[in-house]
Amino acid sequence: MDNLIVHKYGGTSVANADRIMYVAKNIAKVCDQGNRVVVVVSAQGHTTDRLLEKASGIAFDVDRRELDMLLVTGEQQSAALLAMALQSIGKPAISLNAAQVGIEATSVHFNAQIKRIQTKRLTAELDKGKVVVVAGFQGINRHGDMTTLGRGASDTTAVALAAVLEAQLCEIYTDVDGIYTADPRIVPNAKRLNSITYDDMLELAASGAGVLHSRAVEMAKRYNVNLVLRSSMNDTPGTIIKEDIGVERLTVSGLAIDRNVARVSVTGLPDIPGVAYSIFNPLAKEKIIVDIILLSVGKGDKRDYSFTVNKQDLCAACKILEDNKEQIGFDCITTDENLAKLTIVGAGMANNSGVAAAMFESLFECGVNIETISTSEIKISVLIDERNITKAAKAVHSKFEPMLSEDYTETED
Amino acid sequence: MDNLIVHKYGGTSVANADRIMYVAKNIAKVCDQGNRVVVVVSAQGHTTDRLLEKASGIAFDVDRRELDMLLVTGEQQSAALLAMALQSIGKPAISLNAAQVGIEATSVHFNAQIKRIQTKRLTAELDKGKVVVVAGFQGINRHGDMTTLGRGASDTTAVALAAVLEAQLCEIYTDVDGIYTADPRIVPNAKRLNSITYDDMLELAASGAGVLHSRAVEMAKRYNVNLVLRSSMNDTPGTIIKEDIGVERLTVSGLAIDRNVARVSVTGLPDIPGVAYSIFNPLAKEKIIVDIILLSVGKGDKRDYSFTVNKQDLCAACKILEDNKEQIGFDCITTDENLAKLTIVGAGMANNSGVAAAMFESLFECGVNIETISTSEIKISVLIDERNITKAAKAVHSKFEPMLSEDYTETED
Repeated sequence: MDNLIVHKYGGTSVANADRIMYVAKNIAKVCDQGNRVVVVVSAQGHTTDRLLEKASGIAFDVDRRELDMLLVTGEQQSAALLAMALQSIGKPAISLNAAQVGIEATSVHFNAQIKRIQTKRLTAELDKGKVVVVAGFQGINRHGDMTTLGRGASDTTAVALAAVLEAQLCEIYTDVDGIYTADPRIVPNAKRLNSITYDDMLELAASGAGVLHSRAVEMAKRYNVNLVLRSSMNDTPGTIIKEDIGVERLTVSGLAIDRNVARVSVTGLPDIPGVAYSIFNPLAKEKIIVDIILLSVGKGDKRDYSFTVNKQDLCAACKILEDNKEQIGFDCITTDENLAKLTIVGAGMANNSGVAAAMFESLFECGVNIETISTSEIKISVLIDERNITKAAKAVHSKFEPMLSEDYTETED
Repeated sequence: MDNLIVHKYGGTSVANADRIMYVAKNIAKVCDQGNRVVVVVSAQGHTTDRLLEKASGIAFDVDRRELDMLLVTGEQQSAALLAMALQSIGKPAISLNAAQVGIEATSVHFNAQIKRIQTKRLTAELDKGKVVVVAGFQGINRHGDMTTLGRGASDTTAVALAAVLEAQLCEIYTDVDGIYTADPRIVPNAKRLNSITYDDMLELAASGAGVLHSRAVEMAKRYNVNLVLRSSMNDTPGTIIKEDIGVERLTVSGLAIDRNVARVSVTGLPDIPGVAYSIFNPLAKEKIIVDIILLSVGKGDKRDYSFTVNKQDLCAACKILEDNKEQIGFDCITTDENLAKLTIVGAGMANNSGVAAAMFESLFECGVNIETISTSEIKISVLIDERNITKAAKAVHSKFEPMLSEDYTETED
C-alpha cells in the first residue's frame, strides 16, 4: 500500500499518559508528511507482569487459555488509550483488537503463531483517513478464542501487518536507539549499526540480543519487510534491517550474550540408530526448545549427548528424560546451570576462516575456558562459565572492533 | 434449560484472589447439587474507576467507542480469573467475553442495550460440563465493536442470559443481603424483605435504591425470570423478586432515596401546542434522561415547565436548551442542585387513598417542605431540600412501618 507505514511501540513507550501523548505526536508528524499509519502497541509498562501475578495469586498452574484471556486485555487497554490520545490532538483514530482485525493464529495458547490476517477492516478504517491502532501480541484461533504469541511478540504483529498490507516501512520504536555491536551495558565501547542484514539480525536475536523478537525478523526476511529499530525517546535514525545493506558485508556484525542457558548431559547411551529421536522427540512434544546439541565421539559401545535449554525449562527437561529413561536407555543425567553463551555473528564469516581462530585466541588471552563450541555459516557460539561472560565479551569485542568499524555510528550518551 | 442457574457477582465479590476463591467455592457447591451454572461477573473492585481515570489522564472528553474498548477489559479480566479459580478446585470452566458469546447490542456506546444473545457457544460449553463465566456489562454492535451497557449493567447481562437460556433462577450476589424497606445506612430500623414484586422493585430501583439495575428488573419482569438478590459474603437467603409474591400485596413495600437530582425550570413559555416537544426532543436526542416533569397552571398566555435530571447532566441540559432558545421561545432558565427525591413504593397503594396523605403528614410533622410531588399507580415521590433527606426518610419509614411488617426478616448485624 502506498505511503503506508507501520509503527510498533513497546510497553515503556506507552507506560503513562505523558509517554502516550508523546507517541501520538510522533505518529501525527508522520501522518502530516502524507503517510497512512497502522500502529501496534504492547501493554503499558509492567501490566503483563502484574496480570501474571494476579493469575498466580489464584493458582500455581493456570489454564493457558484463561491466561491468554487475561493477558490480552493489557494490549487492548493501551490501544484504546493511544487512539484517544490521537483523537485529542485532532488525528482520527480507532483501536482494534485481534478479533476485530481478524488476526488468525494457531491454537497453542501462550505461544501461538499468526496464520493469516484479514485486511478488510484495516483497509476500511485506513480509507476513512484513520490511524488504526492494533493491540499487539494477540490472535484468535479457529474457535474465536484469544491466543497470545509469546512474550515480546508485538514486534511480530507489526511485521505481519506490514507484510499483509505491503507497507513501505515497519518501524519498531523501543527504549534503545538501534542495534549495537554488543550490549552497551556490558561492552561500553559497543557501536550502533546503521544497518544490518536480516540473517545477521536473526542470529543476533536468536543468540540472546533481546532487542528484537527473532520471529519478527524471520517474518521480515520472508516477506522482505523494511524494518527499522529506533528509539521512541529521541530522533536518532536507528538501525535499518534489510536483505541487502548495500555495502560489503561485514565479517562480524555483532556480538550477543545469553545468560539464560543450562546444559543437560545424558551419559551412557547405546550407540545405535534412533537414540537422538528418543531423547529429543519427547522434549519437542512438550515444547521445550533445545539449542546447542553435542554428541560425544564414541568410546566403546556407549556415547554421551549434551544439549542446552533455557534455565526455566531445565527441571521439566530432566523430568521428561527420567520419565522416558527405559526407552532412551541412558545411565545418568548431569546438569550445569552456571553457563552463559557468547556468540559472534556475521554474514562475511563463511568466507573468512580466521574468525573462529581469532575468537578463540581472544578467549585464551583473557584466560576463559571454553565448555562447548557451536558454529553455523554466519555465527560462532561458545559456552563459558557465566562468571567470565563480561570479561570474555569485552575481549572478543575489542578483537573484532576493526572489522566492526565500516558501518557504525558513535554511541551517544 | 433444566437445572440451569445464572449467578452474577459484583465488583466487591471478586475484588481479590481470596474473594474470587470464595465465589468459586460457592459456585462449586451449586454445581455439586446437580445444577449447571452460568456466571456473570463485573470488573474487580475499583477497576472501572481506575480505567476511567486513565482515560481522563489522556483527554478531558474522550471518544466513547474507545472508552468502551478500554472499559470492557475489566470484566474480561475478572471472568478469566474466576474461570482459573474454578479450574483450580476441580470444576471445568471457561470464560467468554461478549464477542465470544455473541451478546448483540445497540451501537450507543456507554449506554447500549442488548438486542439478541446467541446461545450456540454457551450451550456447547455447558454441554461439555463446564461452568461458563461471562464478562458482564458488555455487548458487541453490528460492526463487531465493543459497547458497554451502562454502569451497573452486569445485572442486566445476567437477567438477559437467564431469559434466553430459560434458567430456573437468576441469583444476583452483592455486598448487601437483600432488598430493604429503606437504605439501612439512613434508616437504621429498615427491614429486609423476603420477597417483592417486579413492579415494586422497578419503582424502588428507578427511584434510586441502587441495589439492582432497573433495566435488569424490567427485563426480568418481561421474561418472567425468577430473580434473587443475596449476599456473596454470607448465607442469608436474600430477597426473591417475582411476578406474584404469593401473599397479599403490601400497601407500601419500600422507600427509596435519590440524591442525584437536579431541577431545571424553564419560564415564560408560550401557551401553544408543541412546546413540550420543542423542549424534550432535543434532550432525548442527546440521551439525557428526564425524570419528574411539571407543567405550571397557566397564568395569562405564559407557562412554566420544570423537570429533573441527574446532576451530571445538568450542564448539558441547560446548554441544549440555550442552543434551542429561539425555537423553544422561553424567557429564562433557573436550576436547583440542592434537592433529593424521596419515594415510597407499593403495589397496594392504588387501592388505598390514605397513603399519600400519610406520607405528607409525616413530612409536615418533621417540618420538611415539599418542593415537587410526582405520583404513579404504585409510587409517590417528593422532591425536598437535600439537607432534610435523612430526617424525612426516617419519619416516613416509621409512619409506614406497621404496613411493612407482613413480610420481613430482622436485619442482621
